[in-house]
Amino acid sequence: MHLKRSPLAPCHFPDMPHIGGVQMWTAKTGAKYQGRPDVLLVKLAGESRVAGVFTKSTAPGAPVEWSKACLARGANAGLLVNAGNANVFTGQIGRDGVRDMANMAAGKIGCEAQDVYVASTGVIGEPLTLSPIEQGVKGIQVADVNCSWENAARAISTTDTYPKGSAQSCTLDGAPVHICGIAKGSGMIAPDMATMLSFIFTDANISREVLQALLSELNETSFNAITVDSDTSTSDTVLLAATAQASHGEINDINDPELVSFKRALGLVMHDLAHQVVKDGEGASKFVEICVTGAESGSAAKAIAMSIANSPLVKTAIAGEDANWGRIVMAVGKSGAHANRDKLAIYFGPYLVAKDGYRAPGYDEGTLANYMKNPELKIRVDVAVGTESFTVWTCDLTHGYIDINADYRS
Amino acid sequence: MHLKRSPLAPCHFPDMPHIGGVQMWTAKTGAKYQGRPDVLLVKLAGESRVAGVFTKSTAPGAPVEWSKACLARGANAGLLVNAGNANVFTGQIGRDGVRDMANMAAGKIGCEAQDVYVASTGVIGEPLTLSPIEQGVKGIQVADVNCSWENAARAISTTDTYPKGSAQSCTLDGAPVHICGIAKGSGMIAPDMATMLSFIFTDANISREVLQALLSELNETSFNAITVDSDTSTSDTVLLAATAQASHGEINDINDPELVSFKRALGLVMHDLAHQVVKDGEGASKFVEICVTGAESGSAAKAIAMSIANSPLVKTAIAGEDANWGRIVMAVGKSGAHANRDKLAIYFGPYLVAKDGYRAPGYDEGTLANYMKNPELKIRVDVAVGTESFTVWTCDLTHGYIDINADYRS
Repeated sequence: MHLKRSPLAPCHFPDMPHIGGVQMWTAKTGAKYQGRPDVLLVKLAGESRVAGVFTKSTAPGAPVEWSKACLARGANAGLLVNAGNANVFTGQIGRDGVRDMANMAAGKIGCEAQDVYVASTGVIGEPLTLSPIEQGVKGIQVADVNCSWENAARAISTTDTYPKGSAQSCTLDGAPVHICGIAKGSGMIAPDMATMLSFIFTDANISREVLQALLSELNETSFNAITVDSDTSTSDTVLLAATAQASHGEINDINDPELVSFKRALGLVMHDLAHQVVKDGEGASKFVEICVTGAESGSAAKAIAMSIANSPLVKTAIAGEDANWGRIVMAVGKSGAHANRDKLAIYFGPYLVAKDGYRAPGYDEGTLANYMKNPELKIRVDVAVGTESFTVWTCDLTHGYIDINADYRS
Repeated sequence: MHLKRSPLAPCHFPDMPHIGGVQMWTAKTGAKYQGRPDVLLVKLAGESRVAGVFTKSTAPGAPVEWSKACLARGANAGLLVNAGNANVFTGQIGRDGVRDMANMAAGKIGCEAQDVYVASTGVIGEPLTLSPIEQGVKGIQVADVNCSWENAARAISTTDTYPKGSAQSCTLDGAPVHICGIAKGSGMIAPDMATMLSFIFTDANISREVLQALLSELNETSFNAITVDSDTSTSDTVLLAATAQASHGEINDINDPELVSFKRALGLVMHDLAHQVVKDGEGASKFVEICVTGAESGSAAKAIAMSIANSPLVKTAIAGEDANWGRIVMAVGKSGAHANRDKLAIYFGPYLVAKDGYRAPGYDEGTLANYMKNPELKIRVDVAVGTESFTVWTCDLTHGYIDINADYRS
């Protein structure tokens, strides 16, 4: 199936700097996708530290199990990714396949197999055929210059309609530091910790513990705050690798004030990548921010926001540019989280559409109909029982989603 | 929007007998729907007992609150239903409107307003205009013969493409007893106790307590075991009225062996109505039974079954007649309920597609592709950690759902 570039896609792939200590190569196996790379190999400098978050699915893929074990033992040599087959629910053959992939990468970049992270994305349940990946990895010339970030992003994508990258810079102890990330994902997006695949690299010199703490915290409000279709992937993996090539001393205290600007920059990269995933949501024509305020707790606010963001009735109304705020009320009600129906307020962009449990005075259908034509929409709901809030991002549900998913495997 | 009759609709409305002690009339207000009844008035005989279950939404409509209070005080005189406006999120005006509706009905059938149940279905958030309903109720001639069950079912429907009715008979203490039910519903169907509107009548002589116990129990495996779109209505109401006109003594013990055949008959009516709701699911082209076995508990089995039934990726694959069982694995994994991935077995109808965490030996795509062409499908998943099971019913997710819901209010 030929997929048209999402109407919400950014104009172009961003300029992204080289990260010292990161070498990357891609290969085209031709196994599922023709004419584009579908394998990514990354080699990290010896001093690198890696942090990661993975799917909470109780039926994770073999690569997720492998990479979790890598993380536990502090593996830091490299990463091999293939797109087209997720190697999930593939039993012992799948487990053997991951080990073989790690061995291929290790042979190429010169390290132990157990030091190589592996990620796979694509169809679930199809036994993995190793030979095309093996041929692809064999063909990589490590003497070659790095592939571009854009090519790396392309190599890890499946139904994505555009490659996703984001970069930021900051200073640590006066030394310039760079952060570059790539991501893939457009369906089966409903993170329960991480979502889809994302690999983020920095030359900062930061201890593993601090790196992991930053990634876990920022993940909650970026990748874990998006949903396309409420379906949680079996392969979700986000890795953050720091190569320690920047010219500053190691930071090993999460409270180090030097970290503030780094954390902000890393958060921007992760937010940007998470938003790009939603904007490439299968069939998406609208990007929607849903902010719930006045909740009892942050988790209650998130539960309500996700209930709205995942409601097929809300999502189809948005696709139809219909400001059907009654369905927002429904979704608040079904979430089960505490809300004061008779004090509820709902805003579409700058327009108050409901307050005190009733349609707002001055409500004007024409004004709202006009607002709904925007490709990016903001919906805010105040549930009037507390002071906590949470924001999530989603897209609409269109015919495009059904076209893509009614016929994905063929 | 003109909606085509669901391809899953039954051939015709069933023959349904008169229930002694139940009088029914409909009216056409023309407020939203032209050329068909949209108001239903029911009068119950003086000895009647009523049981009920309602939406668990935290933002229920004013009619739900009114009828819950009726149930608490043992109201048993009658019922007024309007279709087209759900009278939800309508504040004090909505609450006044329900009371006024109860008064209209009380004046017509000769009782106190507080003894009349009220149910409304349709758009949420639109202030209710009472005058058309008032005109409609005024025009009803109570001397007229009962309307047909089919007309009654039509009068309570909204986006339904066919009227839904079901009837069974049995004996109690040797006396013939009849059960007739009607229902409406096709979108915003994800019961969290009851779903949509359903009104069931019997001439049996059964105490209120026993009636309520039967309704609550049977509801769990009928209306509470279906989902169209995971969205829980603000108006869900199921009422069961027993007029005590049958010629047997009152049954007031839930363990009375005489109840066995009545319970079975009532269960059949409720199952049939629940299935009819799913078969009229907005845009539905496939009716799907999902049975989860081998679970730790009934609630775990239901959580897994609902996770599969509500997955947009599973539902779109079914729409595309694609036996994409990898998405079943995904949905099991995201449910969070305990399952043994490496012992999981999946059946599509009679065909074993996966076992022991891997594609089944003899798996044949052609056979499955052929099976997927059936309008009614059965999917069974054994999660291999216990002995409990649960079955739910759902439909596929098609372009029709989006067509209907992208433009519902206009």
